[in-house]
Amino acid sequence: MPLTLAESPRLRRSPFYDATIRAGASAFTVYNHMLLPAAYAGMEAEYEALTTAVTVWDVAGERQVEFKGPDAARAVQLVTTRDVTKHRVGRARYVLVCSEGGGVLNDPVLLRLADDHFWMSLADRDILLWAQAWAAGRGLDVEITEPDVSPVQVQGPNSRELIRRAFGDAVADQRYFRFTRFTHAGVDLVVSRTGWSGEYGYEVFLTDSSRGEWLWDLLFAAGEGLGVTPAAPNQIRRIEGGILSSGSDMDDHVNPYELGLGRMVDLDVEEFAGRAALAEAAARPLERLLTGLFVAGPPLAVPCHLPVTHDGEPVGRVSSGACSPRFGTNVALGLVRSDLAEPEHGVVVHAEDGERAAVTAALPFVEATKD
Amino acid sequence: MPLTLAESPRLRRSPFYDATIRAGASAFTVYNHMLLPAAYAGMEAEYEALTTAVTVWDVAGERQVEFKGPDAARAVQLVTTRDVTKHRVGRARYVLVCSEGGGVLNDPVLLRLADDHFWMSLADRDILLWAQAWAAGRGLDVEITEPDVSPVQVQGPNSRELIRRAFGDAVADQRYFRFTRFTHAGVDLVVSRTGWSGEYGYEVFLTDSSRGEWLWDLLFAAGEGLGVTPAAPNQIRRIEGGILSSGSDMDDHVNPYELGLGRMVDLDVEEFAGRAALAEAAARPLERLLTGLFVAGPPLAVPCHLPVTHDGEPVGRVSSGACSPRFGTNVALGLVRSDLAEPEHGVVVHAEDGERAAVTAALPFVEATKD
Repeated sequence: MPLTLAESPRLRRSPFYDATIRAGASAFTVYNHMLLPAAYAGMEAEYEALTTAVTVWDVAGERQVEFKGPDAARAVQLVTTRDVTKHRVGRARYVLVCSEGGGVLNDPVLLRLADDHFWMSLADRDILLWAQAWAAGRGLDVEITEPDVSPVQVQGPNSRELIRRAFGDAVADQRYFRFTRFTHAGVDLVVSRTGWSGEYGYEVFLTDSSRGEWLWDLLFAAGEGLGVTPAAPNQIRRIEGGILSSGSDMDDHVNPYELGLGRMVDLDVEEFAGRAALAEAAARPLERLLTGLFVAGPPLAVPCHLPVTHDGEPVGRVSSGACSPRFGTNVALGLVRSDLAEPEHGVVVHAEDGERAAVTAALPFVEATKD
Repeated sequence: MPLTLAESPRLRRSPFYDATIRAGASAFTVYNHMLLPAAYAGMEAEYEALTTAVTVWDVAGERQVEFKGPDAARAVQLVTTRDVTKHRVGRARYVLVCSEGGGVLNDPVLLRLADDHFWMSLADRDILLWAQAWAAGRGLDVEITEPDVSPVQVQGPNSRELIRRAFGDAVADQRYFRFTRFTHAGVDLVVSRTGWSGEYGYEVFLTDSSRGEWLWDLLFAAGEGLGVTPAAPNQIRRIEGGILSSGSDMDDHVNPYELGLGRMVDLDVEEFAGRAALAEAAARPLERLLTGLFVAGPPLAVPCHLPVTHDGEPVGRVSSGACSPRFGTNVALGLVRSDLAEPEHGVVVHAEDGERAAVTAALPFVEATKD
């Protein structure tokens, strides 16, 4: 039975909340203390629109941490595992935020707006506090705040034409992981060629929360005739793309190497949170590793971690899963004993409705559409 | 229309989750990345049980931050505004965690288990990260973790008899804001004379998440004949008691003085996060202040902050509200312009269903039952 969500001011409404309710949002999750639509017509129908047309997502819950001031780059470096000196202005980068124990606290996209100005687009967790406290501990000269910035994702093969109609060629044609800042109808916007779908897509960062309805309507008007559809972050498509969900697929007890994300850790950087633990982890053999899985049976629900066994022994857990129309079976992500993480090992997934035969699979199931 | 909550492993289930579903939990909220029951039979029926009998609440979402080690007290002091040297072992204390700007990040109950050992029982926010980063910045010798500790609240006039039957006289008879550690049927427990209701009550801290069903069943067995009822944190009763909800009634943009909690800030302490800003705030006249309000009309819903006006001018916001059977009208909490915060000023509350006449009122509406 679906759970009912009790509203309260503690669970903030996004600037697009009224628009999403009108558009038929039928379920929500809570993300960075904000309501985030988790379904409209349903995961399969939204998958169809995402993979054949274009979808618009309210992901204002991806709150930003803004770093601004002379020590902004130093403050960013303290809490991220990649070398910030290599991050050019005008580029977006996927980065990791790790605990002192080397676990993954977050996997934001980081935008460098100027030498001394960054936005960190968060997964669910109060990284604002983490960043502020690290900077305070070092006495850095930087302002670290949650700015009035609310992203919308525009994802799918027709997203390029939608963005072209809405904001022109230059914005539409920018390359993967680039972004553009501009003013449209008096509102400051940032549009990046990023997203959480594996499809061609963009994120539109609104810098004035009073203009949510305006931006929503503008995007849907631009999408007329392109099959534009309101949608939630699509679990099927992101699992197919091997894209992780922070908090589900990893947390402080999982390190980047176990996720196959060792390339995101630059141990040549002198100091960042978690560096010592990560240097140790890099030198250790891996006991477990992220893998894809094909899981037999009816559509798989993963409301909580599902145990995985092999020959009756516990060997891991499934942390995400959904039924893929493309593959005609369930695709899933999970951490398993490293000797089983290579493709085509048979394991058993203990779903809430019983045991399921499963086979490990290489990630991603489907390569991302980049350019 | 009530919202549906989409489940995912990112929203953790509490150790009492299955028990609460069986007990009829009908709505949930998300609290520290964990599902927390927000309703069973309904707020009014639960209020009746809470004020005349005894209720049991799954508040495992009140996650703990554990501070352990030689510098534990120093680490606690860095992130709390009261003087930790005055906190005796075996006592619980209401404390504030403030941002560097002096806003309230959290209002935990802090338990001092030993000289070098504390549990901080959190409201909703990742204070674990805040505390860890401050301690790391100072190079303190302390372990700061989220332990396997899950609280249940037992609240209401019959709670004393329930706790006596479950755990004996010594535990039942302890005084307000004391706590006891003991082992029961092989499980380590802490029971404190604290709670979020204003009624006589306790919190039972379970230290083994595999024993949730056991503790739940034990408490309901002990409550037989006492009118024991599963319930959610009761909004009506806590508003009557003037008890705040962190994230709704305050956040980083509200300081303790505005909440009437200046006594919780000890500016004689040399260093803690927010001290400089709080010293400044203490010296400034208050522009706004927390007040109670009686709000006319049908039961008031407060899914988000509601604007408050006076003579047509914006003067504040309502952040919590509910219909009180005791007063036969809505009781509410809000920040208003300080000259209006004294009792019996007429204002207008802009509810989602229209304007409501309201009158400010002294807090608490009802004094807490302490001993």
